[in-house]
Amino acid sequence: MPERTEISTLGEFGLIDHLTKNFELHNASTIVGVGDDAAVIDHFGKQTVITTDLLLEGIHFDLMYMPLKHLGYKSVIVNLSDVYAMNATPTQLTVSIGISNRFSVESLNEFYEGIYAACEKYNVDLIGGDTSSSQKGFVISVTAIGEVAADKFVKRSTANKGDLICVSGDLGGAFLGLTLLEREKNIYLENPKIQPDLEGEDFIVGRLLKPEARKDIIEFFDQQKLLPTAMMDISDGLSSEVLHICNQSNVGCVLYENKIPIAEETRSAAFKFNLDPTVCALNGGEDYELIFTVKQEDYEKIISNEKISIVGYIKDIEEGRKFISKGGNSFDITAQGWNALK
Amino acid sequence: MPERTEISTLGEFGLIDHLTKNFELHNASTIVGVGDDAAVIDHFGKQTVITTDLLLEGIHFDLMYMPLKHLGYKSVIVNLSDVYAMNATPTQLTVSIGISNRFSVESLNEFYEGIYAACEKYNVDLIGGDTSSSQKGFVISVTAIGEVAADKFVKRSTANKGDLICVSGDLGGAFLGLTLLEREKNIYLENPKIQPDLEGEDFIVGRLLKPEARKDIIEFFDQQKLLPTAMMDISDGLSSEVLHICNQSNVGCVLYENKIPIAEETRSAAFKFNLDPTVCALNGGEDYELIFTVKQEDYEKIISNEKISIVGYIKDIEEGRKFISKGGNSFDITAQGWNALK
Repeated sequence: MPERTEISTLGEFGLIDHLTKNFELHNASTIVGVGDDAAVIDHFGKQTVITTDLLLEGIHFDLMYMPLKHLGYKSVIVNLSDVYAMNATPTQLTVSIGISNRFSVESLNEFYEGIYAACEKYNVDLIGGDTSSSQKGFVISVTAIGEVAADKFVKRSTANKGDLICVSGDLGGAFLGLTLLEREKNIYLENPKIQPDLEGEDFIVGRLLKPEARKDIIEFFDQQKLLPTAMMDISDGLSSEVLHICNQSNVGCVLYENKIPIAEETRSAAFKFNLDPTVCALNGGEDYELIFTVKQEDYEKIISNEKISIVGYIKDIEEGRKFISKGGNSFDITAQGWNALK
Repeated sequence: MPERTEISTLGEFGLIDHLTKNFELHNASTIVGVGDDAAVIDHFGKQTVITTDLLLEGIHFDLMYMPLKHLGYKSVIVNLSDVYAMNATPTQLTVSIGISNRFSVESLNEFYEGIYAACEKYNVDLIGGDTSSSQKGFVISVTAIGEVAADKFVKRSTANKGDLICVSGDLGGAFLGLTLLEREKNIYLENPKIQPDLEGEDFIVGRLLKPEARKDIIEFFDQQKLLPTAMMDISDGLSSEVLHICNQSNVGCVLYENKIPIAEETRSAAFKFNLDPTVCALNGGEDYELIFTVKQEDYEKIISNEKISIVGYIKDIEEGRKFISKGGNSFDITAQGWNALK
């Protein structure tokens, strides 16, 4: 009988690594392949960045509380976020969809309104795609293309000892938005007469349903002539992402709990749900902020931008990956981020 | 109550047109957007071609008779075919998959063996992708990137009156392979003790399960310094594709039944199924051959390649789109090709 290994034994990143490890590159134009936010292709000095995301109904989104326009918008944003995470500027986009016959043309119009709104805001062209029926569930596949000046792209694998670890914006909000909407959905499913109570929770709901990509941070780098040493976007929680950077850069790190940026609205929502806001920031996903490392000499530039927080620094690999709590205790950082394959 | 228009009223191409017609392009680098085999992006003189295809289990493939290795191979080929159809050379590829827990690591290894075999044969690099679980069914999204010298890309919309209409290889085989495999599947489902009878039908089964992309034709154009006036790949049947070229080029055409290339194996399989081989070539899909138009002065070059058949020529739009049967009768060409949205 043929061997059978469950995919769950490898996890998403283990699986990708397993499937792609023996693959040799043939084209000189391929600068960065599998294993970063996006791939990089050389085009006569200027570099092209390419990234793709698959979004499946029931896995990545729930149409019960995700309006189609927001879904279209978000489908674009999650890809643009990967392009910015390479320090590149997105320029083009392809969108493929698989739809069942429960969708009408009007509902697809709404979805594309969201796509267009994001393209408009981020100055990106929709250049192609594929449209198909699906037997069940809405399938969305988006590929984003971007450009970056030669050697200005920033990988995950190039952080160095002593570098400051920075994050943009605030963390944990999207996870609390999801927690709230899941609770309201369950209440509604038990008793459809009860209307959802989202009163005063616009912030966390917005963080989940209408994320933005950090174009402003990439523009700030450009204005300041600042090149991060490593960067990626935060889609699976701070813990998971900082470990990616450490693993790929072969370094250790220390993160300080009291430096992690958490919005007041996120904090108070966490308390209502009896959750630790720090845990939400570390392990909750879908914030689409950027995590990046900079040389210590860039400290002055970084603190001039109030949208950036310094949350720790890179250490030797021997010193491990540590989290220092507000009480001063030290813990090993573990990735408990969202795993789409569990 | 909000209006509801069924998607089937528009069809796939109507739907794409409807959803994308109001979209303005922002980036000067976007040369060709939605509406061709692939999009074209300018990269400092050299042009980048990009195309994407979504393949869904139960819609585009049936794992009952599609071995995973072949499926991986074919997922790459259908995209490379679109790149060649722009007269470009494919260079990179992203592959995203959504998988349910019925898949093991071993089964994905098989799928990726097919991906790698195609990448190896066509000299293409796998540079990224996304891996996710799916609730039901296997989801595959492939995006291919290619390159072409400035202004050497070939669109669908540039055929001119008098041009010769050519096709590569032979047509109708993949449709007959599908017909055979569907018949054997139904027999098996009714009585699992009966093993499939594919005796002597390697050719048509191979046409369906292991198509190739016409790299050789693009290389021939390059060697001959021949630039087709219009081109696309044949994925939905000759009728559908010739109408795309005519509609987008705003021209008419005439096709001759006795010029349509059909392999002997296809012809005899058609007779066994009591089907007209010409109808299979006109309306069957998935041959992944190329249809292209050339100027009459390129006639000598074209006939030097035995893999190319001249099947008709382009006429004024007023003369309609005609098919001349072996008996000399003239019919209007109608697209009855495969419509994934019906």
